[in-house]
Amino acid sequence: MIEVQVDTLKEELQHKIDFKTKPLGALGRLEDLALQIGMVQNTLAPQLRNPTMLVFAADHGIASEGVSAYPAEVTPQMVLNFLNGGAAINVFCRQNNIQLKVVDAGVNYDFEPNEFLIDAKIAKGTQNFLTEDAISRAQVQQCFQKAKEIVTKEFNNGCNIIGFGEMGIGNTSSASMLMSVLCNIPIEECVGRGTGLNEEQYKHKINILREALENHPVPQSVFEAMEFFGGFEIVQMCAAMLIAYEKNMLILIDGFIATAAFLCAYEMNKKIIHNAIFCHQSNEQGHRKILERLHVKPLLNLDLRLGEGTGCVLAFPLIQSAVNFLNEMQSFESAGVSNKS
Amino acid sequence: MIEVQVDTLKEELQHKIDFKTKPLGALGRLEDLALQIGMVQNTLAPQLRNPTMLVFAADHGIASEGVSAYPAEVTPQMVLNFLNGGAAINVFCRQNNIQLKVVDAGVNYDFEPNEFLIDAKIAKGTQNFLTEDAISRAQVQQCFQKAKEIVTKEFNNGCNIIGFGEMGIGNTSSASMLMSVLCNIPIEECVGRGTGLNEEQYKHKINILREALENHPVPQSVFEAMEFFGGFEIVQMCAAMLIAYEKNMLILIDGFIATAAFLCAYEMNKKIIHNAIFCHQSNEQGHRKILERLHVKPLLNLDLRLGEGTGCVLAFPLIQSAVNFLNEMQSFESAGVSNKS
Repeated sequence: MIEVQVDTLKEELQHKIDFKTKPLGALGRLEDLALQIGMVQNTLAPQLRNPTMLVFAADHGIASEGVSAYPAEVTPQMVLNFLNGGAAINVFCRQNNIQLKVVDAGVNYDFEPNEFLIDAKIAKGTQNFLTEDAISRAQVQQCFQKAKEIVTKEFNNGCNIIGFGEMGIGNTSSASMLMSVLCNIPIEECVGRGTGLNEEQYKHKINILREALENHPVPQSVFEAMEFFGGFEIVQMCAAMLIAYEKNMLILIDGFIATAAFLCAYEMNKKIIHNAIFCHQSNEQGHRKILERLHVKPLLNLDLRLGEGTGCVLAFPLIQSAVNFLNEMQSFESAGVSNKS
Repeated sequence: MIEVQVDTLKEELQHKIDFKTKPLGALGRLEDLALQIGMVQNTLAPQLRNPTMLVFAADHGIASEGVSAYPAEVTPQMVLNFLNGGAAINVFCRQNNIQLKVVDAGVNYDFEPNEFLIDAKIAKGTQNFLTEDAISRAQVQQCFQKAKEIVTKEFNNGCNIIGFGEMGIGNTSSASMLMSVLCNIPIEECVGRGTGLNEEQYKHKINILREALENHPVPQSVFEAMEFFGGFEIVQMCAAMLIAYEKNMLILIDGFIATAAFLCAYEMNKKIIHNAIFCHQSNEQGHRKILERLHVKPLLNLDLRLGEGTGCVLAFPLIQSAVNFLNEMQSFESAGVSNKS
């Protein structure tokens, strides 16, 4: 019975889209989006309410191995920049009326309380996964608990579309490791230049990560992979995405790191992909490969490689446009326009 | 002396972009846009003022040859739909606070006066270019005169960024012909399926256009090409773009038809490309080829094939984001963030 209803809604949505005053399919990707959003919200008249960006920040033990172009202190400095409204994500959220909250998932710094900062600190950075597990089993569970509280609160505030961004010096290394073990792709193909490594630094990063892989057994579950190589922001994002799916929210996925977190969530619940909107294709080669595995194509390709959730926020107006055309455009009949002969 | 000043501004803009709190180049295409817009406006703090879309509509004699999937009466019907606020372009302009005006460049219909309609009608459609010239030399001149009045008025109202869209059953045929003769590309490679032709209709369209080419001499100038094969909306768009360049406005270019109009303008004044922002890559094969000729890559690729200027309006928030990050983001120094080590 539910199957029949779903099919009917899908047909009704497609009919509504097809009879808008435009050639069949002429709004391209926006039509796919309108159909997806209508199906998620189970309505012919979807609405985006209280759009919210959560930017998860954390430090990484692996950063001490020189895998990033920037020093680790940039993580807390950038969190302060977010809280002061001066980063790219702030500018784009203000422009598009999107609420921004910063989650301290595990930054190596003691922040003053701030209305835009959510304290979900597990520890002041992960352990260095070159030689030990990055995160303990208990810490992974704490991440899931914190993420549940955070997303539930936004849901209770009326949010039905939530985006995930991140900040954490060293986190492309963590994302590359998770991708390599979860997708069974050689680490060399999962590693990019992050925020701007030169050739020598890039080779060093690959060598360090290859050594780290050798120093751990093959993980037997996603949880174990996260314990071995995770970052607190990545695990919290993964957990937050799963909760957002349970709450039937639309889930905006940013670049490489956020997509690696999504990959972990997807391994735990494949249905989450129905609610996911992939926003930006980054230049990291690893990102392209994960997207291929998931058979998805992001909305934007602007050569961004910033993270922070900037891809989500830049794509948001397009998502709003998809909803708006579905709700506001006239049909051939209502507008008195002749359809294709 | 002027050269030195321009170089200095370019260097200053690049410096301002590079020292924002982000890795070098991490905002990708938005950084190129910020640089372009700063250079056009000759300032480190550009502003987008009174963004305006002009949608030029006209009918085409060639439509009587069955080159379109839709009957010719759809042109006036869609103009009425624009005026009633029910088309895709209306929805997207409302969403993005962009002023929309519809220009009757030559629709085969007598419209009632309307505050959003600009009467610039040259005639009730062009002649059928299969057998005769589409437009007379005097009519081309009229188009240039009307376009000058229209754009000057918007400029005087404070607009410094203007987009161009179109509506006209049969106008992909006109655009294909102009492209073929101006780029010296065989007509087969310039013809697409427009708003949705089947295989048989597509072959018919190519045959008609090939015959039309044979029935005219090789045009000796852009003006002559427009007389032979132009549409009133295409010629007025071309003229409007040239005036917008003279007024130093930013010029938003939509899909295939608007790009063909730009091509005509570019042939008359190559410098216009400095002010042009290519917004959307359509699925028409001809569009891809013109963009390659111009060595430009549009901001969006959403499989749109609607026209109306929808690509411009959907890309507008990204252009605004480029300006906003340049004006609002903190620098490494002002935010106290460590730069790359």
